[in-house]
Amino acid sequence: MTDPIRPTDDEARALARDLLAAARIAALGTLDDDGAPVVTRIAFGCDAEGAAMTLVSDLSQHSRAMARDPRVSLLLGEVAGKGDPLTHPRLTLLARAVPVPRGGAEHAACADAWLTTHPKAKLYIGFADFGFVRFDVSAGLLNGGFGRAYRLSPADMGLAPA
Amino acid sequence: MTDPIRPTDDEARALARDLLAAARIAALGTLDDDGAPVVTRIAFGCDAEGAAMTLVSDLSQHSRAMARDPRVSLLLGEVAGKGDPLTHPRLTLLARAVPVPRGGAEHAACADAWLTTHPKAKLYIGFADFGFVRFDVSAGLLNGGFGRAYRLSPADMGLAPA
Repeated sequence: MTDPIRPTDDEARALARDLLAAARIAALGTLDDDGAPVVTRIAFGCDAEGAAMTLVSDLSQHSRAMARDPRVSLLLGEVAGKGDPLTHPRLTLLARAVPVPRGGAEHAACADAWLTTHPKAKLYIGFADFGFVRFDVSAGLLNGGFGRAYRLSPADMGLAPA
Repeated sequence: MTDPIRPTDDEARALARDLLAAARIAALGTLDDDGAPVVTRIAFGCDAEGAAMTLVSDLSQHSRAMARDPRVSLLLGEVAGKGDPLTHPRLTLLARAVPVPRGGAEHAACADAWLTTHPKAKLYIGFADFGFVRFDVSAGLLNGGFGRAYRLSPADMGLAPA
């Protein structure tokens, strides 16, 4: 079987960074208590240093799942416009979820960064059950469209190593 | 902690059925060989009986993952238009992946149904590495928008029991 992964080039790195910077939502994969996958939608953003994060409610299925097992995956890159949706670029992140302690300086920094890209979150960012989770990304699987697949390191994507 | 799941009603059932009928793509959660989640984009459709399926290449990461462990999850419901994307309805399916044997009558029936909803797939539906996978759905997690969460059975969604 032919290896479908292409050698990483600057075009692939730039596409992954663009997808990370533009994403406001993601499909989050977590594990249920039997170890089966569960995919849900979350808000997504990057902080001032470009680190990936989300704002989630403790009441959500995915928050409880991440507390049990921090292994997650995120799919970024919404489909816009016409044509075969599988030709639209998307990025899969493999990551670990790290909760940000509530009420401290790191939480405040996350909130500042978040509200610049997610202004409507001001309606619920202060709710007691909402908190930030950072994603320590170990690898990216970029699909630039039909058959254009790459495996990227955190450095390729402009992220700190996990 | 309050249970955030609302009692299932006809409005929730209709919304889930609409999301299933309209979806042309899905975010697919599979498991890697260490049991960690991986989320990728797939094409998605329903056959003439309303059963959920996809057309995938054997070369893809998710095909190899489903062959190792058939437990999957799918997120349906793309975000369209303005406003907070978390107010847009979406449906998480918990399912098992069942490959359709190549070349037989079931494959031909899948191909007929698929091309009515995914006409651009005619470019690659005949490739030797492409085949159909059916999803036996055990449950649905419907999020009708901020805080409107339901847990649905296959019958609620108009699907055969898994």
